[in-house]
Amino acid sequence: MANALRVGLAGLGTVGGSVVRLLAENAALIAARAGRPIELARVASRTPKAELDLGAASFSTDLASLPHGPVDVVVELIGGVEDAGALVEASLGAGRAVVTANKALLAERGEALFALAHAQGLPVGYEASVAGGIPIVEALRGGLAANRLDALAGIVNGTSNHILTAMENDGQDFAAALAEAQRLGYAEADPTFDVEGVDAAQKLAVLAALAFESGIDFAGVHVEGIAAIDIEDIRYARELGFVVKHLAMARRHADGVAARVHLALVPERVLLAKVSGVTNAILANGDAVGSTVHIGPGAGGMATASAVVADLVALARGHLPVPRPATRRLPALGVRGLVCPHYLKIPAIDQPGVFAEVAEVLSRHAISIEAVIQRPQAIRPDAEPWVPIVILTNDVAETVVEAAVAELGGLGGVTGTITRIRVADL
Amino acid sequence: MANALRVGLAGLGTVGGSVVRLLAENAALIAARAGRPIELARVASRTPKAELDLGAASFSTDLASLPHGPVDVVVELIGGVEDAGALVEASLGAGRAVVTANKALLAERGEALFALAHAQGLPVGYEASVAGGIPIVEALRGGLAANRLDALAGIVNGTSNHILTAMENDGQDFAAALAEAQRLGYAEADPTFDVEGVDAAQKLAVLAALAFESGIDFAGVHVEGIAAIDIEDIRYARELGFVVKHLAMARRHADGVAARVHLALVPERVLLAKVSGVTNAILANGDAVGSTVHIGPGAGGMATASAVVADLVALARGHLPVPRPATRRLPALGVRGLVCPHYLKIPAIDQPGVFAEVAEVLSRHAISIEAVIQRPQAIRPDAEPWVPIVILTNDVAETVVEAAVAELGGLGGVTGTITRIRVADL
Repeated sequence: MANALRVGLAGLGTVGGSVVRLLAENAALIAARAGRPIELARVASRTPKAELDLGAASFSTDLASLPHGPVDVVVELIGGVEDAGALVEASLGAGRAVVTANKALLAERGEALFALAHAQGLPVGYEASVAGGIPIVEALRGGLAANRLDALAGIVNGTSNHILTAMENDGQDFAAALAEAQRLGYAEADPTFDVEGVDAAQKLAVLAALAFESGIDFAGVHVEGIAAIDIEDIRYARELGFVVKHLAMARRHADGVAARVHLALVPERVLLAKVSGVTNAILANGDAVGSTVHIGPGAGGMATASAVVADLVALARGHLPVPRPATRRLPALGVRGLVCPHYLKIPAIDQPGVFAEVAEVLSRHAISIEAVIQRPQAIRPDAEPWVPIVILTNDVAETVVEAAVAELGGLGGVTGTITRIRVADL
Repeated sequence: MANALRVGLAGLGTVGGSVVRLLAENAALIAARAGRPIELARVASRTPKAELDLGAASFSTDLASLPHGPVDVVVELIGGVEDAGALVEASLGAGRAVVTANKALLAERGEALFALAHAQGLPVGYEASVAGGIPIVEALRGGLAANRLDALAGIVNGTSNHILTAMENDGQDFAAALAEAQRLGYAEADPTFDVEGVDAAQKLAVLAALAFESGIDFAGVHVEGIAAIDIEDIRYARELGFVVKHLAMARRHADGVAARVHLALVPERVLLAKVSGVTNAILANGDAVGSTVHIGPGAGGMATASAVVADLVALARGHLPVPRPATRRLPALGVRGLVCPHYLKIPAIDQPGVFAEVAEVLSRHAISIEAVIQRPQAIRPDAEPWVPIVILTNDVAETVVEAAVAELGGLGGVTGTITRIRVADL
């Protein structure tokens, strides 16, 4: 059997520890599939983990020295952008291949790092950076390589999907569902990064850059979180035949890439509507194949380690590609130019004429109505002096619905904030 | 750019014609991803297709000459076992890599052909042989390579799933749903191969051999079709919280591989229960990643061509592996040793004591009952002199349920055939 692939591992957090375990536990089958042993040669971490058996690997707390030791590949699992970026640059500079699980780094600096790797002729694996154990990077790069890919849509943040699923199934409100997710370990003590959509946006940027073979301006991704969701909206959506999901979507247009992360009404017959809990799912649309959907665990130490080690196996076989530098940078369109149906919930004073005013404003903006729900006030348990008017529109342009909502908000009969949720065009 | 990969294409049916189109239509992006042009050099087909633009490729009706021309790879799309097997052997013998969409050939002769390819040091691509455009072969071989894979379960025959979906959604009986599928082009005029489960069993054998790195004895796969399904069973299953699907399942045990294709009750909350129409879906379970599910179009010319050309791209990049010869041949267990819950529908004469007799037989075989449905006879529209007793059992061994069903069939109060459907252990 050929020489071992010598791995330098940076970071011993949940994923790093799992990579150590997986390389040891499945060493024989990994070596058989890789064509040679994959050997953990060096480990660097600021914090030693005494409980981990590092086998024959040397250990150091000095991350910076890792690329300069006798390793063939540096596995970057320290996270963050600055230090991780420096480590990846140093590794490529020292002639080491790189495997990383770092979506933030790739979303913000992927284009430059891939250009550097290309210049050095070194492979970069990043299967683990998106959607945990689901082999979606490989699918977009390899299995769907005959296709011009036009659109991606996915549930790529397990925390948010777990919260929405709990709200949907158990009738919990957002705060209770978040607290439960934290108790179960599915949400961080500070959940900002997940529930505000930043994590999903980073993953979307990584996938869109790959699928559309383009630099993606991460700052141009439109990002909304899930905190504004009300249990009432979930119930109305269900009544209209939809499930509320937090989707990451990217579509290639002639003039750029529309990339956006936001709550969306998904028709309940669609598979993505049925993806529950911390599971991730990514739909890819290609011109030859049509739609494929890739589903699996989006997080967790061993699931993510599965993706890291898959990259190492590909590298050992000589199958992990050197990134091709982006030959273009498609403008980020965000939600500009977007046309889709909308869910509107308008808090209205319960008196004659208000509905007519609302209908008149929508009509004047040429927004046609697909469905309306308005309950008699009496059945609202809290007996507030207003009733929600829920409207499902037909296709309407983003700028038009924005203007209409602003105008509706100014009506004398409308009290409080209007809720607006886009309907997914899957 | 490097030399073109010269393709010799055998077969101009639906998939062959689509490969010709796809290579032409997406030539630029395919060449960019492959690192060199993929050139259709020669085409052989017993039947010329005047409407296809073969570009610069030479055409011959002599299939046997194809491997001996100036081609780097032979793409086998003629189907069947004998002629296709001879062509693949001749191609490997002549030093040509092979890409094939032929599940029957691989199920029956894959082990020998892979051994030949290994001896010759030649890659074989067969992504298109299973589940159309879904890159499941690549996922099992590459993206999940760090895992010991323990189980596969899938909906891999679009015809059968289309029929079951139509029965479920539209209340059609089997004959009507089959006729409709034929009218829509989703079922062949002779649907035997699909509805009797042979097609699914071949695909399962191909996937199981790959996932479990073992020769699979195709004759040992347990195969049942869908023709016995009654619309009434679908309704009862729904009432019990299940959807009836035709599943292909393989599980690795210490003493062999249990591979089986049959109707199964799938809990309606499970994703596979929600895969409808001609869509295919494959669930793979690995020790590190857990479960991933891969969904997409399981047939169709362009979807399958997407898989064929993906293999060609991998080959052009030098990433298509030479098959590793099976180092073992795990015994095929079929349903022997299987333990799972069962759905039983027992046609019983509507008179006192029959239910007690049925219960006594089940009790004596230590089969415990999870749920029972028996309707008053009056509500049966056909007013037959018997009523179905529907029973959902807890886990029971295959041999035990077989013996119990045989005994139940001999009861004086039981009239007609007892329906037995396994519950999927997903």
